[in-house]
Amino acid sequence: MRDSMSQSPWDFGIDKELEMVETRLQKMVESEEKILTEASMHVIGAGGKRIRPTIAILSYRSLGGEDVEKIVDIAAGFELIHSATLVHDDINDGGSTRRGRETVYRRYGLHNAIVTGDFLFVKAFSLGGMYDKEVVRTTADACARLAEGEMVQSRYRHTLGLDLESYVQIMERKTAEPLKAGAMVGAYLAGGTLEETRCLGTYGLNLGVAFQIMDDVLDFVGDESRMGKPIGSDLKEGYLTLPSLLSMKDSNKAKEVITGIIKQEDPSEEDVRRCIDIVIDSGGVEKAKAMAEFYGMEALQHLGCLPNTEFSEALRDIVSRVLERDS
Amino acid sequence: MRDSMSQSPWDFGIDKELEMVETRLQKMVESEEKILTEASMHVIGAGGKRIRPTIAILSYRSLGGEDVEKIVDIAAGFELIHSATLVHDDINDGGSTRRGRETVYRRYGLHNAIVTGDFLFVKAFSLGGMYDKEVVRTTADACARLAEGEMVQSRYRHTLGLDLESYVQIMERKTAEPLKAGAMVGAYLAGGTLEETRCLGTYGLNLGVAFQIMDDVLDFVGDESRMGKPIGSDLKEGYLTLPSLLSMKDSNKAKEVITGIIKQEDPSEEDVRRCIDIVIDSGGVEKAKAMAEFYGMEALQHLGCLPNTEFSEALRDIVSRVLERDS
Repeated sequence: MRDSMSQSPWDFGIDKELEMVETRLQKMVESEEKILTEASMHVIGAGGKRIRPTIAILSYRSLGGEDVEKIVDIAAGFELIHSATLVHDDINDGGSTRRGRETVYRRYGLHNAIVTGDFLFVKAFSLGGMYDKEVVRTTADACARLAEGEMVQSRYRHTLGLDLESYVQIMERKTAEPLKAGAMVGAYLAGGTLEETRCLGTYGLNLGVAFQIMDDVLDFVGDESRMGKPIGSDLKEGYLTLPSLLSMKDSNKAKEVITGIIKQEDPSEEDVRRCIDIVIDSGGVEKAKAMAEFYGMEALQHLGCLPNTEFSEALRDIVSRVLERDS
Repeated sequence: MRDSMSQSPWDFGIDKELEMVETRLQKMVESEEKILTEASMHVIGAGGKRIRPTIAILSYRSLGGEDVEKIVDIAAGFELIHSATLVHDDINDGGSTRRGRETVYRRYGLHNAIVTGDFLFVKAFSLGGMYDKEVVRTTADACARLAEGEMVQSRYRHTLGLDLESYVQIMERKTAEPLKAGAMVGAYLAGGTLEETRCLGTYGLNLGVAFQIMDDVLDFVGDESRMGKPIGSDLKEGYLTLPSLLSMKDSNKAKEVITGIIKQEDPSEEDVRRCIDIVIDSGGVEKAKAMAEFYGMEALQHLGCLPNTEFSEALRDIVSRVLERDS
């Protein structure tokens, strides 16, 4: 595996395609209503890892897909859908920054944030006519699952009822199934066999779970300046995630402190910091990382059916980058 | 023209198709997350005139389209999109009832209302794979225009800056262009000529403007119990519409009173009622009705290119029903 420090985190030999995705994204959010374009670019232009387009493009490439045009639009579509959910999620969660910028909700207000999210969804789905039934169905199903995941997550907010099974269910629906869909669509468009498409889908699903666990881990131990948001936001907003779940299982003290935080509408900064320390001390973060590694290994298992190329190598690399990331 | 009292308002010989649309709508909003199904059915099941599916089906039928299956799904799709925008609009407008029911926002809260709207959009666009580029593009473009219309409308909220041109622009984007899209998709799927498709599109656009003007008129003089919401809601929420715009043009007193209402965040019931009376007395409602009739006549002009059938007759009928409606 290459040295993870010798290159930028997401440089996987598909720079040209990712640049095309950026151009496409900018083009797609153009509107007579300048505020729609501006608010859309506010979230899209803040960067982010573009893991969704990356996985779709690499899956396509890894099975010999050569017509760049064919994959770039749908890859942009997955990023538009993700951006739409970020804009709408931020309304509910009340976080004030995302990727180092004010959220669309804070900057443009409730109404504009709702309409901007709708606009981004619509723009993604306007691509539907370019693809066949299978692609549209796979993508739309993932989006419906996303909405279901949102509902499950909000049901458990400010409660202690979340168990491990429900946690995994939320992660799969909100993060892993969209990555799975991107991987499968890439494989399908490249003309992959059913088996190859299935393998890449399972890779995407497991990678997605690992990615989301690491996201939840970084909310305890991440580099705030590089993430562009403060740590502890999940606890502050009333969400249990894997590190807190695991530390509650093993430590009565952790359980007591976390309970106090989760049930509050707006806990103090100081209380949240103290809770973070307790979760770390009781081993919750380390155990969560171990689970992320488990899912990462599962993801790698399913790459065996791919021909050995720079692209299959890149798909492997992504797993270790996801597990090693600090922002 | 038939006697408008001898039949229910929207009985146009396509009962079977409209029943299929209802079944389809129920089927499409099924979800493992019961609250998504429940909140979706809360808005869909409240009824409404189903003018969007009606226009799509009648356009299809009027040009000889016979494969019911082909039009029913997209007709349901237009209703899903409309329902999604109702759910999201109600968040912003703060109205507490719609079609005689609590709004989804009031009943299920902010987060659930946002996600339910997203879910309804996604379900509509999941149909994309069944149709070709032209259908998806026409529908998605209308949705993007809808978002633009929302933005224009909100820009003028609580201000006196709205002029007639911007009013028509908002109506076209929010109501008339979606009806135009439905009519064009129906014509296209029936294999209509370009000219026939264009004619039905222009019919839909003009009908949509007439429909929206009448909606705005009924917010001044409608039957509250039949509409399932109180009159005066536009004024109360800070929106100028055609009746108030026209009365302000002719009466300084009206201008003064309307200005007072529009600029307030939450005017009293009594002040709103007084304002309604002034708009009616200064002729704003009658003039608005005359404009609706003008658009209705324009719509009829464009039906000339259709073969004479019960369906083209029904499309004519709709115009008078729209102009005569009292709820």
